[in-house]
This record gives sequence, C-alpha cells and structure tokens, in this order.
Amino acid sequence: MSVLVVGSVAFDSVETPFGKAEEVLGGSGTYFSTSASFFTNVDLVAVVGEDFPAEHLEFLRSRDVNLDGLKTAPGRTFRWKGRYEYDLNEAHTLDTQLNVFESFRPELPEGYRDAEYVFLANIDPELQLDVLKQVRRPKMVACDTMNFWIEGKRQALVKTLGHVDFLLINEGEVRQLAREPNLVKAARAILAMGPKTLVVKRGEYGVVMFTEHSIFSAPAYPLESVFDPTGAGDTFAGGFMGYLSSTRNLSEASIRQAIVFGSAMASFTVEDFSLDRLKRLEFPEIEDRFRKFKLLTEFEGLTKP
Amino acid sequence: MSVLVVGSVAFDSVETPFGKAEEVLGGSGTYFSTSASFFTNVDLVAVVGEDFPAEHLEFLRSRDVNLDGLKTAPGRTFRWKGRYEYDLNEAHTLDTQLNVFESFRPELPEGYRDAEYVFLANIDPELQLDVLKQVRRPKMVACDTMNFWIEGKRQALVKTLGHVDFLLINEGEVRQLAREPNLVKAARAILAMGPKTLVVKRGEYGVVMFTEHSIFSAPAYPLESVFDPTGAGDTFAGGFMGYLSSTRNLSEASIRQAIVFGSAMASFTVEDFSLDRLKRLEFPEIEDRFRKFKLLTEFEGLTKP
Repeated sequence: MSVLVVGSVAFDSVETPFGKAEEVLGGSGTYFSTSASFFTNVDLVAVVGEDFPAEHLEFLRSRDVNLDGLKTAPGRTFRWKGRYEYDLNEAHTLDTQLNVFESFRPELPEGYRDAEYVFLANIDPELQLDVLKQVRRPKMVACDTMNFWIEGKRQALVKTLGHVDFLLINEGEVRQLAREPNLVKAARAILAMGPKTLVVKRGEYGVVMFTEHSIFSAPAYPLESVFDPTGAGDTFAGGFMGYLSSTRNLSEASIRQAIVFGSAMASFTVEDFSLDRLKRLEFPEIEDRFRKFKLLTEFEGLTKP
Repeated sequence: MSVLVVGSVAFDSVETPFGKAEEVLGGSGTYFSTSASFFTNVDLVAVVGEDFPAEHLEFLRSRDVNLDGLKTAPGRTFRWKGRYEYDLNEAHTLDTQLNVFESFRPELPEGYRDAEYVFLANIDPELQLDVLKQVRRPKMVACDTMNFWIEGKRQALVKTLGHVDFLLINEGEVRQLAREPNLVKAARAILAMGPKTLVVKRGEYGVVMFTEHSIFSAPAYPLESVFDPTGAGDTFAGGFMGYLSSTRNLSEASIRQAIVFGSAMASFTVEDFSLDRLKRLEFPEIEDRFRKFKLLTEFEGLTKP
C-alpha cells in the first residue's frame, strides 16, 4: 500500500495575528506526504533547489517518505510568502518565487509507475495530466487545483478532470469552476466534468462531499488556537488519501471515515507553524481526535418509522 | 405543553437575486410561532397596528397559536425592508419602521404566566427581562439578540443573559458580544455570562452548540434553491424550542435532536418567500428531512478501542 503524490516542496514565510515564521518547511507535497505517512507509504514527486537543507530531507525520510522522485535542480527552492488576518480562512499572498519549480517537468522513477493511489496536488493541470499518464493502472486518482488555474488554464484543467476520480477544492473554487453560486448546483456541474466525487473544503466550517447519490457533511474540529492555517488543505488530503490507501476500501462508508481522518489531520496542522505539530504527533492522538469528531456530530435518529 | 414567545409581527419587503416580495407577513414572533406550532402549543406576545389584516390572524389561529397576548395598537404595524445579494448569509437592511413596536410594553395575559418554556426573540433586552419577570416559574428560557443591542444596550443585555438558559445568536454576534475572534474562546466567555448553552447560528454552515462540557455541530441542509433566508433563525428557534417543549426532556441527547429539528424547519422556510413554505408544510416532511440530516452526517466510528 502506498500513495503517489506530485506537488511542491517549498520554503514558506508566514505571518498570522499570532506570530510569524520565516523560510520554514512548506509546500503541498510536503504537507500531503507527512500527513499521509501516518497511514501508508508515500512516493513523493517534486523538485527542490540546491539550497534545500539535508535536515528537511532527513525529516521526510524519517516519516518513511520515498524520495526517489524528489529531484534536486540547479537554483533556488520554491518560496511562498503570505499573511493571514483575523479571518484565518483566507490567505493573502505577498510573494511567490517559483524558482526551480518554473521548469519542473515531473518524471516518475520506474518504481513509482505501478502506483494505485495518486494525488495530484495543486500544480499546472498540464503537469498533473502528464504525471498521471506515467502511471500504468491507477486505482484512484484525486486532485486539487486553485483559482489561478481555473482562470488561466481552464481548458487544460477540464481535460485533467476527465481523468480524475476525486476533486478536492475549496468552496470559492467550486463556485468559480462551475460558474454557479449555489453550492449544490455547482457540485452537480463539476461531477458532470468527470470526477465521481467532489470534496469541498470550507476552512473552519469543515468539509462537504458530493457524489451522484449522496452528500456528506463533516465539521472542522473546533480549536481554541488556530495558529497558522497554511497547509491545512494538503494535510487534509494526505490523511484522506493515506487512510483510503491503507484500507484499500473505496466504499462510501470508508470514504466518509477518510474525510474524518483528513479533518483530524488538518486540525493538528493548524495548531502550529509549518509542520511543527505533525512532527510531534503520535498516532493515538489521531484516533483520539477521530473519536472526538464522532462525539461532536452524533445525535439519535428518530425511533418511530 | 406550550411555548411562550415574545417577538415581532411585521410586514417584510424583501429582495433577493431570485425575486422580490412586498409587505408580506414576517417578524420574529411570526416565524417562531409558526415553526413551533408543528410541535407544541404557542402563546404569542406581540403587537400589530390597525392595518394588520384579519387573514394573517386567521393563519396564526389555524396553526393553533394563542393570540390572547397579541395586542392591536393604534397606528401602523412594524415594517422591515431588506435585500440579499448572492451571498445569502447576509441581509442588508434598507428600511426599518418600528411604528406600533416603538411603544410596545409587553403585558402577559394571566393565562400565559405559568409558561414553562419561554423564548425571548430579538427585541430590546430590557423588554426581554420585563417579559421574563412576568413568568412565574419558567423551566427553560432561551433568547436571541442582535448587533444593535450588543452595541447599544450591552449592560441591559448582559443583565438579561444572567436569567437565560439558552442563547441563540449568529456567529458574528458571538464574536462581538465576547470581544474575541476565536469562536471556542468566545463561546466560553459567553457561557460565563449566564447561559448554560450557546447555540451559534452560521447560516448555510449550520449550527454549533457549546455547553460547559460538550460541543455539537450540525450542518445546514444543502439546498439547491435558497429563495429567501428571512426568518431562518427564528424558524430554527421555533423548531428547537417546540421540539423540546413537546418532549419535556432537556437531556443533551434531546437538545441535539432539537437542534436538528430546528435546522430542518429553517431549511424549509428559506425555500420560499415569507411563511409560504411553512404554510404548505406537513409533519411527515419534517421527519423525512430529519432522517436526511442523519444520512448527511453519519459515519462509522473506530472499531478498535
């Protein structure tokens, strides 16, 4: 059992109302891999620059993340700088330096090509499709995207979506992609583009999942201190895919549990800067939080028929 | 079993992206009473002007709402005019005419003074307390309020809260009342003001309830057409209190079910203008929607200990 992920490995500089962090470990591939590594083996496809410290590689290896697909290219590592105001749902990007990511053409090592579970993190939809074509017989493919690609590469994105089983995006992106303000109608429009399942990320309001025949709604875990929301979405995706890959069960019941595991993982990530909370996380804490999600949402059904 | 409610009976003029309605039946007391009437008897305390049509009174009587406490005063009925943009979570008030409501001093008919379940809808907190003092031995008191009173009559409001078991307000009001951006911390601050339970209304994101020892989160029902959100909060409160009054059970399990019934009622109200959807609603539809909330939220727990 393993999950293949293609995404970014980056340096993040983040300011929140509660503090700031400079040039800390970040990137969609990093958050996803670390989160998924609590459940399954991870094959990471990404690129870093010559300035990327051995210490971060060591950390990923310590999580049993396979780095055969992590290329070191001449130049600097991808950098992102952002700020959050009191509304922690929205990141304001201050600076993006693509650096080595600009000319990134992911090439899968032979050992990755039999991957069954594939996550295409938020990168150029053409690259997403390019990666997917290198995988022989994927059993489940999920992807993320963002407003930038919906606006700028809509056609390529729609083409990629034709090959994807799960799309995981935030609420504003759902409305933008479907060109429809009502979420239920927008979800239906997106399911018609290819994905059989749409997972809508709503920040502190949790997650809602749409399939052709069902809707599942899960809250976010109510936290007293949300320190830094960076990486929450990719951490969610890592827990979600990691759990599914570990069970090899794609029933709706299993997918619902995967959403709760993903939500639990995201709730840890935001408790500290960078991957600091995940670095000191133990599996029993994850199970404990899963149980708290159960307590948070359960109510008795009607007894009468 | 019955619920006493003090609130407004009004004419609303509403514009949404989907249409408009002029001088239709509205008001917190009206929405609450109608919603609660599906579960229990309702004693309504309110005031209308001489322009209030018999047809609306007939409707309330047809729902078995007791109108002994509904006064007709010289002058015009309270009027509210508002508009919603595509973000249906936020009402923009265009005009408010208090009219007969301006000099409203609620006086409870003798038959109301033994009420056990009391809902103080969003009116001047001094009037809320004044009504409450006229009730001999209330078993459960809930109240609503709004930014206007939090800003303008904070002291009176805090005094009223000292006599209230349940506070039902929206998310922005929670943060404003507690002067704290984090919802969990804000909830704790509000529970320290008196209410044992805080029910936070989050519009299309549902409801989250805080007590000293637990948190319960319920989604809103995902609707394909939200026509007019006016009255959703009061309809929620009506279903919530109506159900609790009908069961006379204030256990946490019962309160959680009441939140789901309230959410179900609110999901019907927003499907049409004014009380039009509630007017043609049948109880089996409510039970059916309750069951759909169960399907919407359920997931399997962990099997291993």
